[in-house]
Amino acid sequence: MINKIGREIPDNLKELNDKKVFNGEFALEPTGRLRGRTISKIEPGEGKLLDSIEEAIKKVGLKDGMTISFHHHFREGDYILNRVMDIIAKMGIKNITIAPSSLNGVHSPLIEHIKNGVVNNISTSGIRGELANEISNGLMENPIIIRSHGGRARAIESGEIKIDVAFLGVPCCDNYGNANGYEGESFCGSLGYAKVDAKFADKVVLITDNLVPYPNVPASIEQVDVDYVVKIDQIGNPSGIVSGATRYTKDPRELLIAKYASQVMFASGYFKDGFSMQCGTGGASLAVARFLKDKMIEEDIKASFALGGITGQFVEMHEEGLVGKLFDTQSFDLRAAKSIGKNPNHYEIDASFYANPHNKGCAVNLLDFVILSALEVDTNFNVNVITGSDGVLRGASGGHCDTAAGAKLSMIVCPLVRGRIPTIVDNVITTITPGDSIDVVVTDRGIAVNPKRTDLIERLSKTSIPMFTIEELKEKAYKLTGKPKAIEFEDKVVAVVEYRDGSIIDVIRKVK
Amino acid sequence: MINKIGREIPDNLKELNDKKVFNGEFALEPTGRLRGRTISKIEPGEGKLLDSIEEAIKKVGLKDGMTISFHHHFREGDYILNRVMDIIAKMGIKNITIAPSSLNGVHSPLIEHIKNGVVNNISTSGIRGELANEISNGLMENPIIIRSHGGRARAIESGEIKIDVAFLGVPCCDNYGNANGYEGESFCGSLGYAKVDAKFADKVVLITDNLVPYPNVPASIEQVDVDYVVKIDQIGNPSGIVSGATRYTKDPRELLIAKYASQVMFASGYFKDGFSMQCGTGGASLAVARFLKDKMIEEDIKASFALGGITGQFVEMHEEGLVGKLFDTQSFDLRAAKSIGKNPNHYEIDASFYANPHNKGCAVNLLDFVILSALEVDTNFNVNVITGSDGVLRGASGGHCDTAAGAKLSMIVCPLVRGRIPTIVDNVITTITPGDSIDVVVTDRGIAVNPKRTDLIERLSKTSIPMFTIEELKEKAYKLTGKPKAIEFEDKVVAVVEYRDGSIIDVIRKVK
Repeated sequence: MINKIGREIPDNLKELNDKKVFNGEFALEPTGRLRGRTISKIEPGEGKLLDSIEEAIKKVGLKDGMTISFHHHFREGDYILNRVMDIIAKMGIKNITIAPSSLNGVHSPLIEHIKNGVVNNISTSGIRGELANEISNGLMENPIIIRSHGGRARAIESGEIKIDVAFLGVPCCDNYGNANGYEGESFCGSLGYAKVDAKFADKVVLITDNLVPYPNVPASIEQVDVDYVVKIDQIGNPSGIVSGATRYTKDPRELLIAKYASQVMFASGYFKDGFSMQCGTGGASLAVARFLKDKMIEEDIKASFALGGITGQFVEMHEEGLVGKLFDTQSFDLRAAKSIGKNPNHYEIDASFYANPHNKGCAVNLLDFVILSALEVDTNFNVNVITGSDGVLRGASGGHCDTAAGAKLSMIVCPLVRGRIPTIVDNVITTITPGDSIDVVVTDRGIAVNPKRTDLIERLSKTSIPMFTIEELKEKAYKLTGKPKAIEFEDKVVAVVEYRDGSIIDVIRKVK
Repeated sequence: MINKIGREIPDNLKELNDKKVFNGEFALEPTGRLRGRTISKIEPGEGKLLDSIEEAIKKVGLKDGMTISFHHHFREGDYILNRVMDIIAKMGIKNITIAPSSLNGVHSPLIEHIKNGVVNNISTSGIRGELANEISNGLMENPIIIRSHGGRARAIESGEIKIDVAFLGVPCCDNYGNANGYEGESFCGSLGYAKVDAKFADKVVLITDNLVPYPNVPASIEQVDVDYVVKIDQIGNPSGIVSGATRYTKDPRELLIAKYASQVMFASGYFKDGFSMQCGTGGASLAVARFLKDKMIEEDIKASFALGGITGQFVEMHEEGLVGKLFDTQSFDLRAAKSIGKNPNHYEIDASFYANPHNKGCAVNLLDFVILSALEVDTNFNVNVITGSDGVLRGASGGHCDTAAGAKLSMIVCPLVRGRIPTIVDNVITTITPGDSIDVVVTDRGIAVNPKRTDLIERLSKTSIPMFTIEELKEKAYKLTGKPKAIEFEDKVVAVVEYRDGSIIDVIRKVK
């Protein structure tokens, strides 16, 4: 089966079930109802505080074949997932589907749990390191499912992911389950991904190292959604959870990309008072925000909101009055993580509010600009952010396709080549974001505008920004690197890539 | 059929469906799943702002026989319900079930809509005035259903009330549906009842007279739950929405009741640092809070939280550091309504968080004290707050049975007699709260303790508070008033009273 963007999706893929293949950004019309969790009750006098994770696993009735979830707000500092999985393994429970919001390098112990039959399915936004490498080499019988942040929220809400038990690490919690992410030693800021799980999982277990007196409100996760609370010694390694202040790049190539990108923004027609934006954490993205800030001050233009993973840079702009509101589904650094607890207009949103295409209106719908990175972009503007040039899993879908679909101007910033590897290619190895969602690709050697955006081409041709067709950019790249050799894959599908609406946009195969 | 507290429930009541009759405070075990609303989508570029309520009614597809909801945060100042119903009537739509969180005197125009077949079913917490009188006299073919605040939240979440369309007036809103209740001319403070409807209704229409720029966050109702926004000239009469500062009673009888009530609290064993409470708005209740405050200062005791309808009095105690957090599902006066927008620890909760017995832990479960009023209390401690001494509907279930079931010490404060009418009687006309939930009845002539609370009887017998059996109190009342004549009712059931868990605790019949 060939989908709308020409990717071959095997007909016999059992993960397809009744899923459709990708047929355009907004082609899929949702049906049915949200999944309601099981109803239970708790009487006055009954407590929720348990002595151990083991006890919680017993109390919630976790059984073979169930689905459990985690969040990745602790990033490389996460102690929760490995600890819970070790206990589940020791208890002899098998064939668990795990549906974390993402996986990081720290989760390589999952390899053993997969080998031992404890885990047999994975749904995640990202996957990296040793575990990713093993999966690309055929570790698992069933392909993993890659979902965007908005897609995961959609899938949980619609019941495509049926979470039996959510195990959610929380940096600050009372004994009845009111929790936030910004207080305590192991603070992470926003609990945006976890909030969705807490609302839709049948059973919710909070795990904390910082138990505070009742009532711990305002709360990001509320008592009405929590079955049990477990206190452990430490839920994460603070230094892996939040990084310190973000440093500005001095790399001349990144600065050049940032200069072009900001010039595109200023000339686009969308840069005016009340505009909105999302910006990544890469060197070029952060540099764009710096150029942007100067221009905003110069022209007395203020942004209505900034969205997404929030960095200290945007907190600074918010505190200076340049950005009205911060919509935060994930706090990227120390300053952002602290700000969410003290700035009333730094607003914690869940992943559904952020990017779910099938609620009554997510925030990406209102974005003017999004600046995104890429491992590869092809001449149809399709973007790969999940597989490396060797075909191996090494990234995350994240909010890439969500924000690209929503924003009026979706911009990819990337170097034309990385070492001997071209970034602009004939065909991306894996498509995360369809080319229809991408308006401009900005490289250090010039920009390319999606031909369907004739309005932008007209505006930008009046500037001094070096503009090429995407084919021309590709040729420039190939001149430097040579045409990349096709990677050899086996037939076995190791990962299915869902578009945000649940349709299948691509598959990833076992590397040879 | 006779239920656990001896009330006769007709077997042939079609409203029974598969409902059970009341069988004890926590007897009913919930089953099934929460009701998930229908899934829809909205694409980038699509707006939600409509020109009129008519247009919204057309867009949401309202049809004969559907269920619609409203909130009562505007109390006697509400313009929304009547306006929407007038338009629905003009559009020729019939047989609508309305499920407002409560009804007030201002809603008497519903009488015509009922007569004309526009409205044929009502679910509400309270009902008063001309409409209540007409219903008690047999206006409607189908009995109305009286639900507590927690019971309504439970019924909406479980799907017993299936809201097709919620029409929610909001004092401050942006064009994408982010709304709060504390800004604008028609402010009401907490939107606690409306929040439940916004999450579970299939379609949600916000109606505002105060449209503000996007994004209007923090928001009590969020864009992800809202289909359409309509701006009209005025959503309510501010003077009917919030009253000014609460005045303290000078009535010596109320002061005496308050003195006894506070003495009961101090001697109960629950009055210690970190205690929690809910208090009504009646003269005696407010006076209790005043005595309480003095004692708290004197003994350096602080409350962890106050719950419920919040008054300016509790805001004052919060701002003075005597009460740690305010859980607010409904702001009772000007000061409370303004406080919720500025005090970060004045926390807006929805009616499910407040009192739903079938979520994972509502706030009433953690209450130490609740002080409640009564129209009548009988010698089994059953309480009536819905029908007057003439048998006519004239009150509200509210959070009465919810808080009484949850609190460690549930106290009724009421005068022994009102004019020629005894408050303590052999049998209440209608039971809203079962006697098992009531611990102490406090009157101006002394108190009675529920015999099952031997611990309290022991503690209180050491005080100077005049203590009697409930029968003795009744006799004292009857001595003053004579034994009240039984009211004559016809067979026709005009209202079904649900206990908070959905079981039927009583019915109300047509008055002769």
